[in-house]
Amino acid sequence: MPLPPSELRTLVEAYLDELDLTPELGTLGDPMRHALGGKRVRPVLCLATGDALGIPPERLLPAAAAVELIHSFSLVHDDLPAMDDDRERRGAPSVWAQYGEAAAVLAGDALLAEAFRLGLSYPSGAVARELVEATLAMIGGQWLDIQGEAPGDELHRLKTGALFSAAIGCALAVVELPQAEEAHWRAFAEDLGLLFQIVDDILDGDGLVLELGADSARQLADEAAARVRVRLGELDADTEVLLGMVDELAVRTS
Amino acid sequence: MPLPPSELRTLVEAYLDELDLTPELGTLGDPMRHALGGKRVRPVLCLATGDALGIPPERLLPAAAAVELIHSFSLVHDDLPAMDDDRERRGAPSVWAQYGEAAAVLAGDALLAEAFRLGLSYPSGAVARELVEATLAMIGGQWLDIQGEAPGDELHRLKTGALFSAAIGCALAVVELPQAEEAHWRAFAEDLGLLFQIVDDILDGDGLVLELGADSARQLADEAAARVRVRLGELDADTEVLLGMVDELAVRTS
Repeated sequence: MPLPPSELRTLVEAYLDELDLTPELGTLGDPMRHALGGKRVRPVLCLATGDALGIPPERLLPAAAAVELIHSFSLVHDDLPAMDDDRERRGAPSVWAQYGEAAAVLAGDALLAEAFRLGLSYPSGAVARELVEATLAMIGGQWLDIQGEAPGDELHRLKTGALFSAAIGCALAVVELPQAEEAHWRAFAEDLGLLFQIVDDILDGDGLVLELGADSARQLADEAAARVRVRLGELDADTEVLLGMVDELAVRTS
Repeated sequence: MPLPPSELRTLVEAYLDELDLTPELGTLGDPMRHALGGKRVRPVLCLATGDALGIPPERLLPAAAAVELIHSFSLVHDDLPAMDDDRERRGAPSVWAQYGEAAAVLAGDALLAEAFRLGLSYPSGAVARELVEATLAMIGGQWLDIQGEAPGDELHRLKTGALFSAAIGCALAVVELPQAEEAHWRAFAEDLGLLFQIVDDILDGDGLVLELGADSARQLADEAAARVRVRLGELDADTEVLLGMVDELAVRTS
């Protein structure tokens, strides 16, 4: 019987609360922990994918936490004055606004490195490879974003979709699936990333909403959600919890 | 017959010149490549260690390049206005002075991520683990440095010694050595890192030079060099090239 997202979220919170940072980082742990707010969508998705595949959540927690650390790393650096210049994040001061720019640069660096350390706690390098590829895509997406040159969908695929897919990819990386089954999961991951991006645009009123209007964007989101549900139906796994998460992501309001 | 450092350096330069960056990084490759100047001390040390252990340089080039990318990542972020505020690096504009702060933040992030990608090109995660531990130590060292609170030797061990040791550790990570032999190599790596740090202080006129005076710092450097030579003599390997490198590092003037 798969665990509901609320229980998976509790596991993620407890794991992050108790996570031992590298001792040499010292008080840099304060801005790092400040950066680790958020709804835990990605780590819960990672654990739910694993649960559907029969992987106990405990085994996936380091990978799930690593995905969350990489998400936080990107926000800390994106908020910097030289980048998006955001003083607030989730109703609180952003890391640089609270701790200064130098702390924000180094806390972001350390979150990324700690994420790789967690990814490398698995015997094989497969989880870490998922993480590094998503990270490089995100950095490329942010670079396109600040230059203002890229079409919105390509930008969003890199900035948002890549890490979303990696949350699922990390679960796939710790099991050996037949190639065809893995391909089905990858297709699900890609379409779910797309759905998340479209809903992001709808909530932010930018990207696709500016390009196509709010109604067309909502229609695209509905179509993406329908496609994701079909993908889920093709999987040889207990996907009930994942289906519930898809339904929530499709109509989320924050 | 081990290859001389000059030939190893040529191999490193050619590998870095031809290194394919992740395509999604696009034009961020320009500030990244701008950052990749330098004398290649660490990658050459990595290859020379491998050569002494019978590992062909070609097999170690991705690890050696990864060490150099991490060195460059740290310099790009350390030079930022919010950190050390250095407009020049190696007689040329630093990355932020040439390309802007946002480019420097992202180029540093990307150099670090590319380094992990290179480290993960090996079947096991051992090389990547060496890299991530050194990176976390360096970040902790830089954090201590900007706070101005740490004793100079601890700071230097983290900021300089850790990556220096990792250059040797990456070579050890791709061979299986008997535990006692590996311990000898690790001791050599640590003492060589210390020697490099002391000479850094002598060249920069700071750290140990301010604490103890120039003559005492020079004496410490000579003692460290002597200890490193003893360590080399204990190793069951053809250490002639490494010995030459130690002699050069002990009296280097830049």
